[in-house]
Amino acid sequence: MSDKPIRVTVWNEFRHERSNAAVKAIYPEGMHAVVAEALRRRLGSAVEVGTATLDEPDHGLTDEVLERTDVLTWWGHGAHHEVRDEIAEKVRGRVLRGMGLLPMHSGHLSKPFTLLMGTTCMLKWRDCGEREILWNVRPGHPITDGLSDHLDLPQTEMYGELFDIPEPDELIFISWFEGGNVFRSGCCFHRGKGAIFYFRPGHETFPIYHHDQVQRVLANAVRWLAPKSSSPYAGDGVNVTEPMAPIGS
Amino acid sequence: MSDKPIRVTVWNEFRHERSNAAVKAIYPEGMHAVVAEALRRRLGSAVEVGTATLDEPDHGLTDEVLERTDVLTWWGHGAHHEVRDEIAEKVRGRVLRGMGLLPMHSGHLSKPFTLLMGTTCMLKWRDCGEREILWNVRPGHPITDGLSDHLDLPQTEMYGELFDIPEPDELIFISWFEGGNVFRSGCCFHRGKGAIFYFRPGHETFPIYHHDQVQRVLANAVRWLAPKSSSPYAGDGVNVTEPMAPIGS
Amino acid sequence: MSDKPIRVTVWNEFRHERSNAAVKAIYPEGMHAVVAEALRRRLGSAVEVGTATLDEPDHGLTDEVLERTDVLTWWGHGAHHEVRDEIAEKVRGRVLRGMGLLPMHSGHLSKPFTLLMGTTCMLKWRDCGEREILWNVRPGHPITDGLSDHLDLPQTEMYGELFDIPEPDELIFISWFEGGNVFRSGCCFHRGKGAIFYFRPGHETFPIYHHDQVQRVLANAVRWLAPKSSSPYAGDGVNVTEPMAPIGS
Amino acid sequence: MSDKPIRVTVWNEFRHERSNAAVKAIYPEGMHAVVAEALRRRLGSAVEVGTATLDEPDHGLTDEVLERTDVLTWWGHGAHHEVRDEIAEKVRGRVLRGMGLLPMHSGHLSKPFTLLMGTTCMLKWRDCGEREILWNVRPGHPITDGLSDHLDLPQTEMYGELFDIPEPDELIFISWFEGGNVFRSGCCFHRGKGAIFYFRPGHETFPIYHHDQVQRVLANAVRWLAPKSSSPYAGDGVNVTEPMAPIGS
Repeated sequence: MSDKPIRVTVWNEFRHERSNAAVKAIYPEGMHAVVAEALRRRLGSAVEVGTATLDEPDHGLTDEVLERTDVLTWWGHGAHHEVRDEIAEKVRGRVLRGMGLLPMHSGHLSKPFTLLMGTTCMLKWRDCGEREILWNVRPGHPITDGLSDHLDLPQTEMYGELFDIPEPDELIFISWFEGGNVFRSGCCFHRGKGAIFYFRPGHETFPIYHHDQVQRVLANAVRWLAPKSSSPYAGDGVNVTEPMAPIGS
Repeated sequence: MSDKPIRVTVWNEFRHERSNAAVKAIYPEGMHAVVAEALRRRLGSAVEVGTATLDEPDHGLTDEVLERTDVLTWWGHGAHHEVRDEIAEKVRGRVLRGMGLLPMHSGHLSKPFTLLMGTTCMLKWRDCGEREILWNVRPGHPITDGLSDHLDLPQTEMYGELFDIPEPDELIFISWFEGGNVFRSGCCFHRGKGAIFYFRPGHETFPIYHHDQVQRVLANAVRWLAPKSSSPYAGDGVNVTEPMAPIGS
Repeated sequence: MSDKPIRVTVWNEFRHERSNAAVKAIYPEGMHAVVAEALRRRLGSAVEVGTATLDEPDHGLTDEVLERTDVLTWWGHGAHHEVRDEIAEKVRGRVLRGMGLLPMHSGHLSKPFTLLMGTTCMLKWRDCGEREILWNVRPGHPITDGLSDHLDLPQTEMYGELFDIPEPDELIFISWFEGGNVFRSGCCFHRGKGAIFYFRPGHETFPIYHHDQVQRVLANAVRWLAPKSSSPYAGDGVNVTEPMAPIGS
Repeated sequence: MSDKPIRVTVWNEFRHERSNAAVKAIYPEGMHAVVAEALRRRLGSAVEVGTATLDEPDHGLTDEVLERTDVLTWWGHGAHHEVRDEIAEKVRGRVLRGMGLLPMHSGHLSKPFTLLMGTTCMLKWRDCGEREILWNVRPGHPITDGLSDHLDLPQTEMYGELFDIPEPDELIFISWFEGGNVFRSGCCFHRGKGAIFYFRPGHETFPIYHHDQVQRVLANAVRWLAPKSSSPYAGDGVNVTEPMAPIGS
């Protein structure tokens, strides 16, 4: 593959930051601005980062934008149902053709992610600002580069098992929560030619995306999610009338 | 789990058998009749087998039928699009709550299967009656009980890779085709509380479902797909306000 | 497969119970006696249970015993190195030919398990009697039958990630520990024709194997580990001089 | 991770090329020379390639060589038993600490690979120069970059299922053989911090390693196998006396 920059689109619902003063205080220009800036700062010329939000035309995800996106990050929470079905389907199709997808936190219920998983993607939750420790269970994986054996977040919303997903193709992080729960917090999936990395941290009322190690994971994940193969993908099927080898001899 | 009979519903599109004389000659009462009879004969009192077809009201899959079905087998081909979306969604939901699903042959493009997979489920195909050998790559799996190391089908339709599915949780059979192709022909998936076994053989113009070893696989698969756990499934999510352990001490 | 009883051999190092008064008070006749009795009581005529211990000739694992064992449970801790290499190799070979293996707790470092895994199987540990909650992440799996969504153990030794194992073929339980750690506590592996279920609970200084739900897991696991297929296993390789299909036509 | 060159060591048994005139004609300086040259030519400054062979002191794999090797390729066939156990164990340990391993063809029975797998790694074989087609079942994987949907080898030795390995973490190629067999020909495994890619082609009596697309796979695999994370690996275990969180509050 070439060494051209990875073209990233950071997608955000961008509602809480405008309607909730506490969230606005943490993310005055929206979570997408913080995430985009972190990726630019950490990955430099290896990326070109744009943003898109729910209330833009086509949610900012026109065909043109999707076609030139290598990795799409996704944060949504209260307005998953406002994402139009045909846009969600386009995102799904684009992943199958090779785009990386990085659903964050409550993006577990986003339309593109649930369409790709086929399960409910539901979970337990509790919002009381408890401590979370994410344990690194794949120290050799590119997504864990530069991390120690755990990440420690002093205050977050709890997500607990059962997380109703297909068994991840690669399980990277398992979270411990102060209140007694655990969660598969970093999950890799391969679908069609594309890869998906679900990453749990990110509740809007805490400064999670300002956290150094969280940003490190996001930057590593963008590198890992970028397309890595120019091999053709025949996801539309092929009626091959000619055999490879002689038949009926 | 109890030793009550496994309640099986054999679903069939049941169109080719009525419109195509060659197919009718092989399956005069429909493929579902042959499959149902084979399961009854081979599994005896371990099963209760009913059938359902596309042109019955609600495609024969009323809520009542689905709720009392432990394992649903599915054969469809030319009329996938005629299966109503709300019925397909009900099947998907019932699988997540524990029902086993056995899509056969061209059922790879059925709505319930593709909804559960999230990918296109497309493949290469060639219909010239070539030989297929299915190799058993999991000799210890319940689905291979009583089989030798391979099944040999003298004439069948070819399905070839790329088969656009998520990586199977368990890969049971790999097919060789005379014309030079290979295929992952027996694939297990776990979704929610339910299990899925996709089994490739079955083209309507060949007497595949009369084949002794094919019937053996179907009978084994029904046993394997039957629900095996009474543990609760919280696929709708739970807001757990109380922690398991004290917080903030 | 037939409905003959599952032949279980419960293996125990049986040293701590003789040398440590606290352990002896919990398991006066050895842990194997408690485990064997629990399996007999819960599984009744579905099993025939014997025991074997380190200090018996051949560690109680003669060829004859191994050949007629369907499922072998294994508890060892301080004397892994005293298990003779040739016996460990025989256990490994017997698993590949179809026997189920259930290593418990510190059995993660036993010779048969580490030979089958190929990794160090090491982990973090801390022995201060903290609380453990095992979360059920596979509610449809036979091993979780009859369980709620978690098991709660008031006092145990902690095992923490990184647990250096191959990615489990099926992950059943994830543990939460009071002191901040997590652990993959119920892991299924398939090797050759055999299956392996590693189950974490069991420190000798706590009455873990008297716990109702722990016993339930062990009984479920024995059922799941029992051989399920009479298909041949060609683990020694075959030089097949004759092709299945004509060559060079 | 830095952009320093990937340090590759190409290991070869190097016996057939000296004792068999037909093999010598294809690989006059040994297969390792052809493989090393192909990697240098295709990967340029991205790699530093050295070689090592069985009959060198310590088989060319001194501690110093192993420590500075990022990726080790391995070809062996008739003399697996001559590889000293302590060297094989060192290779295994080095993989767990992060080195990539690329066993080729009959390297399926090499000591390092079988130690890491835990199974027999045996298979069916037939040596009559039949045609092999390798189908690409993971078009998005880095190892398939630049390939079409298949590789076509006019003459090779057949390897057939059952291949007695653990279920691969990622399955990349499935082979079709003219004589009726199939084989999982490109298999990825993760063990400890290291990765393993088994690649089937390579019988010594055919010019397999001169084949353009085979070389392409080897070059891609070296890139994929190179260590990608600086995260610590605690494969020796840690007794952590201090909890992360307060206990017993």
